[in-house]
Amino acid sequence: MNPMFANLPTTIFEVMSSLARETGAINLGQGFPDDPGPEDVRRVAADAVLNGYNQYPSMMGIPELRAGVAAHYKHWQGVDLDPATEVMVTSGATEALAGAILGIVEPGDEVVLFEPMYDAYLPLVRLAGGVPKFVTLQPPHFRLTEEALAKAFSPKTKAVVFNNPLNPTATVFSPEDLALLADFCRRFDAIAISDEVWEHVVFDGRRHQPVLGLEGMRDRSVKIGSAGKIFSLTGWKVGFVCAAPHIMKVLAKSHQFLAFTTAPNLQTAVAYGLAKDDAYFEGMRKNFARSRDRFTQGLQTLGFEVIPSQGTYFLNIDITPLGESDDVAFCRRLVMEHGVAAIPVSAFYAEGAVKTVVRFCFAKKDSTLDAGLERLADAI
Amino acid sequence: MNPMFANLPTTIFEVMSSLARETGAINLGQGFPDDPGPEDVRRVAADAVLNGYNQYPSMMGIPELRAGVAAHYKHWQGVDLDPATEVMVTSGATEALAGAILGIVEPGDEVVLFEPMYDAYLPLVRLAGGVPKFVTLQPPHFRLTEEALAKAFSPKTKAVVFNNPLNPTATVFSPEDLALLADFCRRFDAIAISDEVWEHVVFDGRRHQPVLGLEGMRDRSVKIGSAGKIFSLTGWKVGFVCAAPHIMKVLAKSHQFLAFTTAPNLQTAVAYGLAKDDAYFEGMRKNFARSRDRFTQGLQTLGFEVIPSQGTYFLNIDITPLGESDDVAFCRRLVMEHGVAAIPVSAFYAEGAVKTVVRFCFAKKDSTLDAGLERLADAI
Ligand SMILES: CSCCC(=O)C(=O)O
Ligand SMILES: CSCCC(=O)C(=O)O
Repeated sequence: MNPMFANLPTTIFEVMSSLARETGAINLGQGFPDDPGPEDVRRVAADAVLNGYNQYPSMMGIPELRAGVAAHYKHWQGVDLDPATEVMVTSGATEALAGAILGIVEPGDEVVLFEPMYDAYLPLVRLAGGVPKFVTLQPPHFRLTEEALAKAFSPKTKAVVFNNPLNPTATVFSPEDLALLADFCRRFDAIAISDEVWEHVVFDGRRHQPVLGLEGMRDRSVKIGSAGKIFSLTGWKVGFVCAAPHIMKVLAKSHQFLAFTTAPNLQTAVAYGLAKDDAYFEGMRKNFARSRDRFTQGLQTLGFEVIPSQGTYFLNIDITPLGESDDVAFCRRLVMEHGVAAIPVSAFYAEGAVKTVVRFCFAKKDSTLDAGLERLADAI
Repeated sequence: MNPMFANLPTTIFEVMSSLARETGAINLGQGFPDDPGPEDVRRVAADAVLNGYNQYPSMMGIPELRAGVAAHYKHWQGVDLDPATEVMVTSGATEALAGAILGIVEPGDEVVLFEPMYDAYLPLVRLAGGVPKFVTLQPPHFRLTEEALAKAFSPKTKAVVFNNPLNPTATVFSPEDLALLADFCRRFDAIAISDEVWEHVVFDGRRHQPVLGLEGMRDRSVKIGSAGKIFSLTGWKVGFVCAAPHIMKVLAKSHQFLAFTTAPNLQTAVAYGLAKDDAYFEGMRKNFARSRDRFTQGLQTLGFEVIPSQGTYFLNIDITPLGESDDVAFCRRLVMEHGVAAIPVSAFYAEGAVKTVVRFCFAKKDSTLDAGLERLADAI
C-alpha cells in the first residue's frame, strides 16, 4: 500500500457527518445546506436523465455547459474565456483540484500552501511528489504579507494552491493581498491554483475577485469552481476548471484518466442554472447572510465569541473564553453529548495548528439553526 | 507542467468520438450503446433528483447501493462481501482504477500489465511512480502462459492490473489462465487490480469468474465494476470497488481526495437496477449477442475477416486480408471518407503494437449496425 494514503486519517468532514448520522446530531459540520436546492434546476436534471442522452458526453464537458460557464464568469467577474479551449467540466471541485495538482506539480517541485487550508491540498501535493512550503496566516485577518511570501516562494516554486474566499476562516482576500500574491507568482514564474468554490457566497456588498483577473495572471492560473456550492446541490459533484489553453491542455490529460467525464443530465441542469438572472444569485447571497446573522446573534446571546464571517457557508467561534483549549475534544463532546456536529479548525493545519477555533455551517433552515442553538446552550 | 501528462495524447476514444461528432459519422468506436438504457432505472434517478437528497452522501456510497452491490455479486458470482467494509462507490470505473493504482502502487514498485491493455492503465501506473512490466498476449487466444508470467513477475511486483473480459480482444480468460495468474500473485505477494467492467457482457453460456473468487485471492484483490456498463448508461459514471477491509481502508483514502463522492440520485437508481431479476440480465446479454451475430454476419458477407467475440461490446477485424498494415490510417480513412468511426487496436499497446486489427462496438440498434455496414461496404 502507498503509505502516503495508508497513513491518512479519514477527512474530518466525513468523520463528523458519520457521527452526526449515527447519533442523530444536528449537522453543522460539513459544508452543505439543508434545503433541497432550486427546484427548477432539479427539474431540468430529472427531465434530462429521463428523456435526454445518458452515454459518455464529450470528455471536456457538454458544449452548453462550457459556454454557460464562460458566459457566467464574463457576466459576474468580467473574465473572458474561450469555452472551446479554456473551460473544462469535472466531477466536482475535488477532482478538479486533484487533476490540477497532479497535472502541474512534478516530483521535487515546491508548492506554496496557506494554513489554515482545506484538507485535500496537502495530500494531493504529496501524491504528486511536491514539497509543501507553508505560510501560516494570522488571525483575525488572515492577510498575506510580503515577509511571509518571501519566505515561502523560491526559484523551485511551481505552484501556489489557495482558496478565496477562505474556508474555514470565512475571510475574503483583499485586493492588496491578491496583488501581492500575483506579484510573487509572476516573479517566481509560479502557477496559481485557485479554489474559488465559494465565489458566489460573499457578503456585505463584497464582490469576488477571480485569480484570472489579476494582473499578469491570465496565463498562469487555474480557477476552480463548483456547481454544487453555487446551487446548494453539493452531492451533484459538478465542477469547472478554467485556464489558458497551454495549461488546459495538460489538465485535460489528468482529467482523462482520473474521471474522464461527468453525468450529462447534471451538466445540462447546471448549464440551465448558470443562466439564471442576477436576482437569483443576489437572493441566494442575501439568504445566506440572513442565516449568518441569525446564527451569529443566537451564539452571541448564548455568550459565545463569534469571529465575523465575510463569505462561505461558515462562521467560527473562539473557544478560549469557554476555558477550552482542545477543539477536537470540544467537537467530540458537542456531537456525542450535546447532539451538534461542528468542525475543529485544527484539522485545517499541517503544523502549528490553532486549537481553539470551531467552525459551524450556517447554511441551514432557521429551524435547524435554532434547534442547534438550543443544544449548544446545554454545552456551556 | 508534469511531462507525464503534458506528453500524453488525447485518449483514442475521445479522438474518434470527436471526429464522429464533427463529421456525422456512425460511431462504432467508443464503447457505448445507442439505446437510451432501461427506462425504469432512469425514472428512479429522475424521481430521486427531483424529490430526494442532493447533498453530499456518505463518502463510501449510499448504504442501499453498497448493500445492493454486495447482494448482486453474491447472487451472480457467489462472492460474499461485507457492504460496510468491502464495498465502495466511485465516480465511474476510471476513478476506481485511478484510486486503486494510486492507493496501492508506490514509486519504484513493479506493476505487471498485459498488452493489449485499456489506455488508462499505463499512465496511472507511471503517475504513481510504478515500473510497468509488460506481458504481450498473443492472438488469437490471448492466453496467459507460465513462461510469460515468470518473465514479468519479480519480488518487486506490487500489483498486476488486468481486464477480464478483455477489451479490446473480446476474449474471456479461462479458468486455467486465472488460476495461473492467482498462483503468481500468491507466490510474489502481489495484489490483483481487476477491471471487471464487462462482467455481465459475456456470451454463449459463459459465466464471469470474479478475481475475488480465485483461490487465495480474496484478501489480495481489488474488483472494479461499472454501473454505466451494466445498465448501458455509460455517462452516469457510477462505479464500484470491492476489496478486503485492509485494502479498502487505503482505497477509501485515495477516493476521498480524487472525487470524494458520487451523485446520490444516480446511486439510488443503480441500487434499484442491481436488484432486477435474472431475466433482465440474461435478456441484456442475449440482445448483445444478437447484435454481435448480426454485425459479424454483415461484416463476413462483405468479406471482412472477423475475430470471434466472447464478451464485451466489441468485436475485431483483421485488416491484413484487405491489404492494410496501418490500423490508425485505416480508421482515419474510415471516419473521414466513409463515415464510420472505429478504434485502431494499436492504441492498446505501449510497445510492439499489432497494427492490423480494428475494433468495432456492436452495442447498437440494428438500424445503426446496418447503416454502418452499408458504409463499410464502400470502404473495401
Ligand atoms: C467534500 S466535504 C467538505 C465540504 C466543505 O467544503 C467543507 O465542509 O469545508
Ligand atoms: C472511457 S471511454 C472508453 C470506453 C470503453 O470502454 C472503450 O471504448 O473501450
